[in-house]
Amino acid sequence: MDRKLDHESIVPLYHQLKELLRETIEKGVSKPGDKIPSEKDLCAQFNISRSTAKKAIEDLVQEGVLNRIQGKGTFIAKPKLEQSLSGFYSFSKVMQEKGLNPRDIILDMKIVEATPKVTRKLKLKPDEEVIELKRLRCANNEPIIFETSYIPEKIVPKISPESILENSLYDVMFKEFGIIVAKAKEVFEPILIQEYERKYLEVKEGYPALLLERIAYDTYENPVEYCHSIVRGDRCRFYTELI
Amino acid sequence: MDRKLDHESIVPLYHQLKELLRETIEKGVSKPGDKIPSEKDLCAQFNISRSTAKKAIEDLVQEGVLNRIQGKGTFIAKPKLEQSLSGFYSFSKVMQEKGLNPRDIILDMKIVEATPKVTRKLKLKPDEEVIELKRLRCANNEPIIFETSYIPEKIVPKISPESILENSLYDVMFKEFGIIVAKAKEVFEPILIQEYERKYLEVKEGYPALLLERIAYDTYENPVEYCHSIVRGDRCRFYTELI
Repeated sequence: MDRKLDHESIVPLYHQLKELLRETIEKGVSKPGDKIPSEKDLCAQFNISRSTAKKAIEDLVQEGVLNRIQGKGTFIAKPKLEQSLSGFYSFSKVMQEKGLNPRDIILDMKIVEATPKVTRKLKLKPDEEVIELKRLRCANNEPIIFETSYIPEKIVPKISPESILENSLYDVMFKEFGIIVAKAKEVFEPILIQEYERKYLEVKEGYPALLLERIAYDTYENPVEYCHSIVRGDRCRFYTELI
Repeated sequence: MDRKLDHESIVPLYHQLKELLRETIEKGVSKPGDKIPSEKDLCAQFNISRSTAKKAIEDLVQEGVLNRIQGKGTFIAKPKLEQSLSGFYSFSKVMQEKGLNPRDIILDMKIVEATPKVTRKLKLKPDEEVIELKRLRCANNEPIIFETSYIPEKIVPKISPESILENSLYDVMFKEFGIIVAKAKEVFEPILIQEYERKYLEVKEGYPALLLERIAYDTYENPVEYCHSIVRGDRCRFYTELI
């Protein structure tokens, strides 16, 4: 980091320092696991105040670029998991392709009467029942997504938690019930992690996350799953190609 | 709102109330601009504490579902602007199609030496110059996106702010410089609005936003623009279709 900050710029110093730290990571000068200079060292090196250095580091911790380990210092975080939105994807398969070990924890699985929202999303009749499946999806034992799926009970009668733990949900829907998930619509928006989700995702309340709502359809264009996911923003980013 | 909350459920009451309020909006029972019951009325109606009602409402304000107007009450917000990520899009055109009046404010436009990051994104040689264009993109006078574009100076010499205000940037690149923007790669991740952006976007620091980074390419696959956008999460959502 031999560059200087521009003390005359309209861009605040903490913002410039953030960009500079980010660049040393993107260029590969600093690597995941490397310790970054202390706040005190950054102050001396860039001629900035302690609060400027503190704000830059805190922002980068919240954005998942840096990790702070109590009593040890601040380190470059692992790169975010990247997920293409250009095609259909399965969490387990994407993780495997990246050489990560996917694991699901079933938090709850039960038959419930569909709420009005789920009824509408799945085009059900009033009072129909759905399987409500709450899962924590992990990669290398790190929780990444807190996911709730709703599947019409009538199309997957007696589906068991054991089979979903062994295979992907869509594999089970196909192999045991002959349902082919052919396409999906996804809506996503940035949100803040809520108290309710933070204990599962092991991040602080107020951290950025992506809310992802998916409706999956079978080959006859019938909705077969409505899924509501909270994806950790400090660990994931998405990309797409527009033509 | 004749439904009750389930005081025995593992789902916290504030979360249930949020979902219930959301449903009355999605079902069209309550419409944008309608006033919602006061915290006090919600407490009486659902037999919940004041802090539970307060948390549900505060969350929904932050998520852009409700608007609080000082001294007047809390109202259903306008629906979020929806943007497809399945195809190439122009902010101005999407807004026009939605019947909204798009307007850009050029905050700054100048020739600068490309930073190492911009050099890498645009595949420039060291020390090459770029046009740095900072714009606030508004719909019906409401700021929606805080956007910074970098374009290699050599491909758009003497480009003027006036022409960009009259036409879209890509239209100007085509009409004045013969550059056809043929495709783009976009990466996006949820972030929190920073102090630096909040004054332009007129939301509070810490509100959820989407960071969108785009590299646009011409027909020869040369990068012609690198763009960094902060999109208000309380006003926008994105969708895509996966096949």
